[in-house]
Amino acid sequence: MMYPRFILEQVRETEPVIQCITNFVTVNDCANILLAAGATPTMAQDIREAEEAIQKNSGLVCNMGAIDMTESMLLAGRMANKLGKPVVLDPVGAGGTVIRRSTAAELLSGIRFTAIRGNASEIKALAGVANDGIGVDVGALDKISEANVHEYAELCRKTAARLGTVIAISGPTDVISDGSRVLLIRNGDPVMARITGSGCMLTTLIGAFAAVPGADMLEAVASAVLVMDIAGELAKERLIMNHTGNATFRNDLIDAVFNMTAEEYYERSRVELIGSDM
Amino acid sequence: MMYPRFILEQVRETEPVIQCITNFVTVNDCANILLAAGATPTMAQDIREAEEAIQKNSGLVCNMGAIDMTESMLLAGRMANKLGKPVVLDPVGAGGTVIRRSTAAELLSGIRFTAIRGNASEIKALAGVANDGIGVDVGALDKISEANVHEYAELCRKTAARLGTVIAISGPTDVISDGSRVLLIRNGDPVMARITGSGCMLTTLIGAFAAVPGADMLEAVASAVLVMDIAGELAKERLIMNHTGNATFRNDLIDAVFNMTAEEYYERSRVELIGSDM
Amino acid sequence: MMYPRFILEQVRETEPVIQCITNFVTVNDCANILLAAGATPTMAQDIREAEEAIQKNSGLVCNMGAIDMTESMLLAGRMANKLGKPVVLDPVGAGGTVIRRSTAAELLSGIRFTAIRGNASEIKALAGVANDGIGVDVGALDKISEANVHEYAELCRKTAARLGTVIAISGPTDVISDGSRVLLIRNGDPVMARITGSGCMLTTLIGAFAAVPGADMLEAVASAVLVMDIAGELAKERLIMNHTGNATFRNDLIDAVFNMTAEEYYERSRVELIGSDM
Repeated sequence: MMYPRFILEQVRETEPVIQCITNFVTVNDCANILLAAGATPTMAQDIREAEEAIQKNSGLVCNMGAIDMTESMLLAGRMANKLGKPVVLDPVGAGGTVIRRSTAAELLSGIRFTAIRGNASEIKALAGVANDGIGVDVGALDKISEANVHEYAELCRKTAARLGTVIAISGPTDVISDGSRVLLIRNGDPVMARITGSGCMLTTLIGAFAAVPGADMLEAVASAVLVMDIAGELAKERLIMNHTGNATFRNDLIDAVFNMTAEEYYERSRVELIGSDM
Repeated sequence: MMYPRFILEQVRETEPVIQCITNFVTVNDCANILLAAGATPTMAQDIREAEEAIQKNSGLVCNMGAIDMTESMLLAGRMANKLGKPVVLDPVGAGGTVIRRSTAAELLSGIRFTAIRGNASEIKALAGVANDGIGVDVGALDKISEANVHEYAELCRKTAARLGTVIAISGPTDVISDGSRVLLIRNGDPVMARITGSGCMLTTLIGAFAAVPGADMLEAVASAVLVMDIAGELAKERLIMNHTGNATFRNDLIDAVFNMTAEEYYERSRVELIGSDM
Repeated sequence: MMYPRFILEQVRETEPVIQCITNFVTVNDCANILLAAGATPTMAQDIREAEEAIQKNSGLVCNMGAIDMTESMLLAGRMANKLGKPVVLDPVGAGGTVIRRSTAAELLSGIRFTAIRGNASEIKALAGVANDGIGVDVGALDKISEANVHEYAELCRKTAARLGTVIAISGPTDVISDGSRVLLIRNGDPVMARITGSGCMLTTLIGAFAAVPGADMLEAVASAVLVMDIAGELAKERLIMNHTGNATFRNDLIDAVFNMTAEEYYERSRVELIGSDM
């Protein structure tokens, strides 16, 4: 199956400048993975310039880990909407605390998001469904498995349709929908959960992929997910058992994006389409 | 000597979620070393959620490098005290400036800390003793040596007894006391001082070790110190002279925690007990 | 040509403590490259301690990426001026937005900078010349080339003379002037633009080099530029084509500073003096 195509090639050609309003834990990794992909990061998030900056940039990423930057997200996000530039949301810890629930609601009502990526607990929270999220990781009861993946496919499709966006739920199987089509992606590696920022980095990559002119958004999001997952697989294969660990893995993951070829991408992609024709 | 035991094993089994209110310089490293140890980080520090978040998490780390987050530390710390969850303090630069001295005093009077870890200048500052601290590193006149280690042992014991906590003073010899027993640990490597964050990372690890159910706190702290020190030794042995440097060392250090075995730990541990029987 | 000398040696001997008020994206890298050079970082930037802290430290770096820290920069910078300690400015994104233009003006009028380092778009903005800067990277129309390097030399010389400082413009050829002498440096590698923070790290290094007692400022700045550029070349030579990428490059770059020898430095330095006798 050739779909979704290797959009990383277009990112490398068009070199989009992606503005990120993102958290201080993983911001350096987010910048470096954008650079690995051939895009350019700019972390302009001050309320005095967020709206002005997006007018020159190619797309916006709002990461709710920067929970104190909601106002900047709203200003930049609305401007991006006005200018037709992509805006991607990472609803970090959306269900975890009162302030995160209200912030998520505020962002969803103030900005039309091109795409949203989160773990199962976070997307359930956005969907208004009870969830088991603790901190920033998926709750044990919310983990995607072969047993529940079709429930998640339906949740993803319905929520994407309701919000008019593309939603990607990260997990052992990734579930992605634009409100009609649903893709399941069975790539990636569990070690990705042993570094901080694999979610944030993926969301940032989605921002770059969505900024490719003329991109089909479901394809752009799915292609970014595949690139990240396959980079995780390649990094895992470089791990030396009982010798290298998550710090090396982080570097190898970013390096794998830097070097990824179309061949690696197409050979490894494990995509299933459900719920509709393409 | 088998004491202190290899508590990292229990961290891997129980996977505690550690909430850190910590500085922006080393926050990424703190997150990754927690993940290396099998714990999970959550950096919820906003004043609107710090207190709520700790109710779901396993323990709290307050790093005074986040000098503008005192209010969040107090809220989360008091709640942790109420719930019987461990709270660990890193008094970064405690003696360095007026605001750090007053912040340290405020934290010590507002929160009952399970453990405190700092360098000799910082612990002297907490003890109300004149010190030579500049910036965030130990002052030249305060360095622990074989000549003064027994003075530090006594300072550590007395201060721990007075504050009702376990104190770890980091240095060429680490000094740890719960107010009665004193342990000297002669592990580690000087290259650890050539990366930013080895102190912060250790304090974060202590948070995870202290969150193991039923832990003896002196043992938990000492075991975390040993794991960090031994990881430093292993990373040092991987350094290629005149070729790799502190960036590689940082990665190797985290990787060494990821992979550490009980054998490495017990073979390398150099612990001396003074001042009391165990 | 033996000029500029290998000032890294003096940094290693004198171990200056450099206070950085810098952005959250690259702060960890800035700290680690200072440690690689044998200096010590302290990121004291809170308005309640910035001015007090600089009195104990050896030099100050103001990085405009920390756009919300202007007040702290002014307080610490003025005190540094009073005490005769070096203050280095990185005018990150200076021409990009209204707030950055006004902040740059405020800093230039409030502080006497020992040195300023930026890309061509940023230095043009400081010089009051129209520029093509987007985000934090040099604009396409502003890139230094052999065709325009002598124009930049003149711009650099005049602006340095007007501001009474040493200016370094980073690019494929680096242009450095103290207002009379101009140096062109033809070292470095394009991969340096594929990691975040190579500019910030260089500015931080300049802070350490400028803090060497009795340093000639043009020489100190040029020597720091050479060390960074040569570290970039060494890191590039370690890249394994189609295998390692920008994450590995970042580590190798810092490691190369950690290990750099006078031989590597003098053999590789490609410095041209124009515009004046030395």
